[in-house]
Amino acid sequence: MTRERLTLFDTTLRDGAQTNGVDFSVEDKVLIAGLLDELGLDYVEGGYPGANPTDNRLFTERRTKRAKFTAFGMTKRAGVSVSNDPGIAALIGAQSDAICYVAKSWDHQVRLALGTSTEENLEGIRLSVHAAIEAGKEALVDCEHFFDGYKANPDYALACARTAYEAGARWVVLCDTNGGSQPAEVEAIVRAVTEVVPGGHLGIHAHNDTEQAVANSLAAVRGGVRQIQGTLNGIGERCGNANLVSIIPTLLLKPFYAERFEIGVSLEALKGLTALSHRFDEIVNRAPNRQAPYVGASAFATKAGIHASAIVKDPSTYEHVPPESVGNSRRVLVSDQAGRSNLLAELSRLGIAVDKADTRLETLLSAVKEREAVGYSYEGADASFELLARRTLGTVPEYFTVESFHVTVERRFDAEGRRRHFSESEAVVKLRVGGERLLTVGEGNGPVNALDRALRKDLGVYQDVIADLELIDYKVRILNGGTEAVTRVLIESRDGTGASWSTVGVSENVVDASFEALIDSIVFKLVRAGVQPA
Amino acid sequence: MTRERLTLFDTTLRDGAQTNGVDFSVEDKVLIAGLLDELGLDYVEGGYPGANPTDNRLFTERRTKRAKFTAFGMTKRAGVSVSNDPGIAALIGAQSDAICYVAKSWDHQVRLALGTSTEENLEGIRLSVHAAIEAGKEALVDCEHFFDGYKANPDYALACARTAYEAGARWVVLCDTNGGSQPAEVEAIVRAVTEVVPGGHLGIHAHNDTEQAVANSLAAVRGGVRQIQGTLNGIGERCGNANLVSIIPTLLLKPFYAERFEIGVSLEALKGLTALSHRFDEIVNRAPNRQAPYVGASAFATKAGIHASAIVKDPSTYEHVPPESVGNSRRVLVSDQAGRSNLLAELSRLGIAVDKADTRLETLLSAVKEREAVGYSYEGADASFELLARRTLGTVPEYFTVESFHVTVERRFDAEGRRRHFSESEAVVKLRVGGERLLTVGEGNGPVNALDRALRKDLGVYQDVIADLELIDYKVRILNGGTEAVTRVLIESRDGTGASWSTVGVSENVVDASFEALIDSIVFKLVRAGVQPA
Repeated sequence: MTRERLTLFDTTLRDGAQTNGVDFSVEDKVLIAGLLDELGLDYVEGGYPGANPTDNRLFTERRTKRAKFTAFGMTKRAGVSVSNDPGIAALIGAQSDAICYVAKSWDHQVRLALGTSTEENLEGIRLSVHAAIEAGKEALVDCEHFFDGYKANPDYALACARTAYEAGARWVVLCDTNGGSQPAEVEAIVRAVTEVVPGGHLGIHAHNDTEQAVANSLAAVRGGVRQIQGTLNGIGERCGNANLVSIIPTLLLKPFYAERFEIGVSLEALKGLTALSHRFDEIVNRAPNRQAPYVGASAFATKAGIHASAIVKDPSTYEHVPPESVGNSRRVLVSDQAGRSNLLAELSRLGIAVDKADTRLETLLSAVKEREAVGYSYEGADASFELLARRTLGTVPEYFTVESFHVTVERRFDAEGRRRHFSESEAVVKLRVGGERLLTVGEGNGPVNALDRALRKDLGVYQDVIADLELIDYKVRILNGGTEAVTRVLIESRDGTGASWSTVGVSENVVDASFEALIDSIVFKLVRAGVQPA
Repeated sequence: MTRERLTLFDTTLRDGAQTNGVDFSVEDKVLIAGLLDELGLDYVEGGYPGANPTDNRLFTERRTKRAKFTAFGMTKRAGVSVSNDPGIAALIGAQSDAICYVAKSWDHQVRLALGTSTEENLEGIRLSVHAAIEAGKEALVDCEHFFDGYKANPDYALACARTAYEAGARWVVLCDTNGGSQPAEVEAIVRAVTEVVPGGHLGIHAHNDTEQAVANSLAAVRGGVRQIQGTLNGIGERCGNANLVSIIPTLLLKPFYAERFEIGVSLEALKGLTALSHRFDEIVNRAPNRQAPYVGASAFATKAGIHASAIVKDPSTYEHVPPESVGNSRRVLVSDQAGRSNLLAELSRLGIAVDKADTRLETLLSAVKEREAVGYSYEGADASFELLARRTLGTVPEYFTVESFHVTVERRFDAEGRRRHFSESEAVVKLRVGGERLLTVGEGNGPVNALDRALRKDLGVYQDVIADLELIDYKVRILNGGTEAVTRVLIESRDGTGASWSTVGVSENVVDASFEALIDSIVFKLVRAGVQPA
């Protein structure tokens, strides 16, 4: 049986940008567009050119290689010609392969929100689609409020869909704008729409307001649509959009769909899904959801009890898919089985040879568990993990010892309460290198910056080795509420060879935690360089 | 049309206790059972008597008034008589109205995990149900692996269901144990089961491994089941159980279900759902999920300017149900995408009267945009936004002026490089209150903690007003890579009245940014208290 092609449309950078607390920089958007392109999505919607400076800058170039880079905007306003509509002009001028227009398809909304006639609205759809096609771009039309509109006035909702399709839109996307529709309704309404627009030209855009955005998207596919719109980790306004990170593995791994459909994401690319999901959380600086389907740290975790023994006999008992298929791994929470094998895999990945029977593995395993229990996380700090492993195995020399550091932050305000500007942080570090005692001082615009400069200013005999060390990223996460909470600092460093590595520090004190991560970074660099201690 | 009764079964205290990181005390369980009882659930499953001391203590009393308090356990072991099975004895001896037995219904699993024959398994179901009934308790049978079992061997899966029903079980619960089934499969299989067991005696127990536990539960209802099992906030092993906090409002508020079914939860009780959900998060010490359907802080939040203008005209545009119906409320986020309409909506929500035509609105709007351009974010900082608005409108008195602050962080290490523990941060703040000049000093485990303590130690005439001010959350976000990056600090504060508010600070220097947010928090408290400047 030949399988039908389903098209995946990502709107993380547009509808996802509506998420409370998420604000992408142009650099974020370029990075994320690249990740989505590699994953194998068909469309990447970048944003809304003309609406804000970020998106204007983003659309000065196409940001994807394979995926169709898509600009979002409104259809032509009533009362102006296409050529006089600044919104349309911005869309046509943007560097994109496709334009996704949003158009209301609920007559009540057309009159209420747009204050135009239902006829003008149809005309706007028609002319806007034509404008995109004349500009050599593919046109999509997002029918806002489609399901509520259909329930209120099916004829008008269908007229909007038909108008878009007949005007030449490649895709007519049915939008459940307020997220309130139920799967059975969605499936039935989609079936009705396929009488007017072929399913091969229909898409679904679902929201998670009843926790059924994934189910609504898949119900729409059963009803006939062949494009699914969604976001990474289901971010989006209110309760979020349909979560592509849950939908993609379901389409690829569940026979119910895999036997009927194919998508642009390969089974090989799927193995990178867990890493991609966590990478995205890092970019938007959110703690990954441990319970996330497929990619969560707990998604394949089994707690002590009846299940743990059964899972050893037959994983399929409590695993609906193999964890490796999405790049995740099994965790049996009290038994060290999983931990041990993960650890061995990680060590061999780092080129650290250890015998399976080596008892120091247990020591390392419990060290990792103890440290993660107090807030360390080695997922994002490969270098700190490698140092911990090598220290446990006794292969890290003591290059230097730190006696103390002292940091001052001073700030003066003028009469109007404005900050007076001058470099206001100073750090003094006292350490011993071999027999030598070093005092080094640095200034910075903040305590961490000052410490970083102090440390890298004078490390005696090691100075040449660390001269090209550079700090390229710095992340802080508070692990539980209150200023007395534990602070986790992640630092990414780079050197002249272009190699980069990440280190972690944890303390109640953000300066302390940062110092720990800075020290790890320097020691890691010395180990990598094979430097012998003074 | 008369509506059918749907039965709600909560397993938060049993299956929910399998959640990674969740560990209920007896007191927790008693408290939560009470909350579930008040909400109007039909069954509250307390745990597994005989399996651990907590549950043994819990089942020394019935813990619900209206709901049937239910004990969970396994059916009779093979090779022993009911009277000689300690597990059955613990269940019969427990103080409960009902017993929910778990029994495998996948022949492969029976042989593999139990190592008994399929016949013995059926016999165990039969005798265990009889034992419960003879003890004057209601019997339920949870058919583990039912859907996978049915796909592998429908006859045996049905035999298990039939055996339980014919033995006198009030409910036969179909369990999607590894959470991998899809809604359409669930609905079809449930239909087939109703040929053998009346739907009025069938239940569904779904897991969220493909993000469709809610959809699977509702699909099963369409297929014929009349009991739904789930947990508060969807906690549970791996990706969690079906989320009753999403299912209950959907059943009550969506015509698709409300017209066909009735449940034990009243529309009045539903108004307490948001509070209940957050209360539960507090008990299990988790940060509430802002994006949670119905009850999340963002569930009715709007960011986009175009949406905000429409929502003012007609809430149903972007609200699928009225927020008040679940005890939640609407929020219009102020962000650089915001237009005048967001601003006006937010100002009126804050009770700040401004004329639509007031030119200061433009000043405020551009102030918001400028500040967000340099890193401020007012979405998560309502109090800082209110202060900015009131300052622009000239209604914030100058309570005090800060001359300067000075913070030191000192850390000593022992010979092994371990941190020496003592309070190592000190902050001195100099400020003027009216004519008076104040010097105040505080110590803390970090620079921000020290500043916080210094500030709240002595604010002269305002001291009484801020005495009950408390800092409850602290978030740091680095806005672009490197230690020289801009740091955004968000602080959440609370006072004796239980009111809480959030403030924001931005600087290259994390201490600076924190200080700004701390000052905003104090000034906001003074403004709210209607304090006149000294």
